[in-house]
Amino acid sequence: MLYAVIMAGGSGTRFWPKSRRQSPKQFLRLFGETTMIQQTAGRIAPMVDPSRLLVVTGLDQAESARAQLADVPAANILAEPAPRDTAACVGLAAGVVAARDPEAVMIVMPADHVIEPQARFLETVEDAVSLIQAEPLSLVTFGIRPTRPETGYGYIEQGDEFVMPSGRIGRCVAQFREKPNLETARSFLDSGRFLWNSGIFVWRARTILDEIKAHRPGLHEGLAPILAHADSPSFGQVLAERFPQLERVPIDRAVLERSAHVKVIEAPYQWSDVGDWRALAELLELDSAGNAVFGRTLTHGSTGSIFISEEGGLVAALGVEDLVVVQSQGAVLVARKERLDELKALVEGLGKAGLQAFS
Amino acid sequence: MLYAVIMAGGSGTRFWPKSRRQSPKQFLRLFGETTMIQQTAGRIAPMVDPSRLLVVTGLDQAESARAQLADVPAANILAEPAPRDTAACVGLAAGVVAARDPEAVMIVMPADHVIEPQARFLETVEDAVSLIQAEPLSLVTFGIRPTRPETGYGYIEQGDEFVMPSGRIGRCVAQFREKPNLETARSFLDSGRFLWNSGIFVWRARTILDEIKAHRPGLHEGLAPILAHADSPSFGQVLAERFPQLERVPIDRAVLERSAHVKVIEAPYQWSDVGDWRALAELLELDSAGNAVFGRTLTHGSTGSIFISEEGGLVAALGVEDLVVVQSQGAVLVARKERLDELKALVEGLGKAGLQAFS
Repeated sequence: MLYAVIMAGGSGTRFWPKSRRQSPKQFLRLFGETTMIQQTAGRIAPMVDPSRLLVVTGLDQAESARAQLADVPAANILAEPAPRDTAACVGLAAGVVAARDPEAVMIVMPADHVIEPQARFLETVEDAVSLIQAEPLSLVTFGIRPTRPETGYGYIEQGDEFVMPSGRIGRCVAQFREKPNLETARSFLDSGRFLWNSGIFVWRARTILDEIKAHRPGLHEGLAPILAHADSPSFGQVLAERFPQLERVPIDRAVLERSAHVKVIEAPYQWSDVGDWRALAELLELDSAGNAVFGRTLTHGSTGSIFISEEGGLVAALGVEDLVVVQSQGAVLVARKERLDELKALVEGLGKAGLQAFS
Repeated sequence: MLYAVIMAGGSGTRFWPKSRRQSPKQFLRLFGETTMIQQTAGRIAPMVDPSRLLVVTGLDQAESARAQLADVPAANILAEPAPRDTAACVGLAAGVVAARDPEAVMIVMPADHVIEPQARFLETVEDAVSLIQAEPLSLVTFGIRPTRPETGYGYIEQGDEFVMPSGRIGRCVAQFREKPNLETARSFLDSGRFLWNSGIFVWRARTILDEIKAHRPGLHEGLAPILAHADSPSFGQVLAERFPQLERVPIDRAVLERSAHVKVIEAPYQWSDVGDWRALAELLELDSAGNAVFGRTLTHGSTGSIFISEEGGLVAALGVEDLVVVQSQGAVLVARKERLDELKALVEGLGKAGLQAFS
């Protein structure tokens, strides 16, 4: 059976002031009527019943996850007592899944991506599942055709192609490359051989546990006593005691860069990880002066900016350019667009300034 | 006896979003615990009892004036049914004052200026009053020594000096000059002979009425039937019917530019008309990066800006410069400092954009 694991551990400073400690991006309605985690769950719903949907999130966010995914059994919400990066997260979820169904295939999905259209996404999941049924050791990743020399993503160099059981083309993986510098990113883009690593993976639960054991034995050993209590009443206590000691490493670096069994399917759908306000603005409508606007806004002689106003408030701009202005929950962010990467530092400074209430 | 007339008719778009249609600048607490009109009334209080203090304001603001100046008799709040500029305003107030006391001297003060210290201001008023007692036809203005080539003010060229009864020096007026262009303003500044017209005047009520009659007979004729009802029960009705028909002209142009009896006293006090957010910022404290800040603010890599946050909200700035950011009453203004002169146009655009609630 297919299980789905939604990774919802992000702390989400990049959408401050809309995202807060208690409500990071994945729990926000950034698009339409539902939150990003609800959209992620809904996207896979035609293939995965809520009883087979797991969520891994932080302790602070477990309550939001339960409230927003009311159909998902409480035992499927795994609350990490401390963030230990994606290898520990994937290992934990894979162990719980394998304990329920030793033959289970699982798809791992970040909670906060935008993917359209759903049908093409599900088609790709079906390709991956049938590939794994034919070759159970496969670790399948979904790659995105790059559109810019992005330095914030990991890249996958495609190797030999092969025909998947669906009849469509998959590729072996020549190498994984962590976030490159701009020059390298440009050469990746020009070569046509590289895809972005979208962070969506499909594999058998047992296979990924075996791979973790092979390439990161310490992490596997650390996970074993936790997983021995999977779905038992003592699970929460063991998790609280042992999870914070696990090695902190991304699954890409722990396993995918080292395994010989990684395959990549180029995504036939539109994808965005909506990394910050600028990425979100690309999905908003533009006014006649090229500003991305949402909510009540009034602009006068302003260009190239993003104006977002929530809760019935008004954002009025006069003669400004290339700004990001967001009003939400009693706070206003006014940032130069090109310096938005420093937003995390600003948000981390809230505490020191005695403004914890806004973090 | 000395009467005081506070001119409080400004509509105050220049402090949007803090100032609104119902609460223009003069009714706001921009400094300290009291509003600007309360500060103006308090400034003259040692010389003028509330029974001799009159306020001329708009119909929309009369309620605010009554509430904020509770000691002032209701009959002293004159509500203009339509704004007719300062000549009509001064004529109306002078007529009411003269009807109560034909020998009264009156000081006319805009409601929204900052003047410090009070003692030097009162000393100047005393100089003016004693000058008028000696020369009852005098029209006394208070002039401010210019500190910059301001193009938004009227200028007074000083003529011959004379010794006032107080022993201090006053000057005759060589000429009034309306708002000059930048080149002319620079030459005025360099000459040392020009003062800014601060809009504060002292004269006998009957004298200014006679001057209006001499230089603007039409306006005087228009005022006569209104003033015939001063302090009678029918005053409000006659005012409503006739005031809107009066000529719309500033007292400077109607009388002061034409009269031979104008004297000027150079103000020995600090003065600001606090014309917009930039002027207000000069009175705020600066943070280490040279930003003027008020309320809850957090700045990161931002310089030369004004950040004002009210009602417990937060304004956070990242990498911006030379902006004015004001959060007040559910609205946020983000403006390029040098384009703040266009704020009126922005505020006037609120209605067209369906955002009347914020105007």
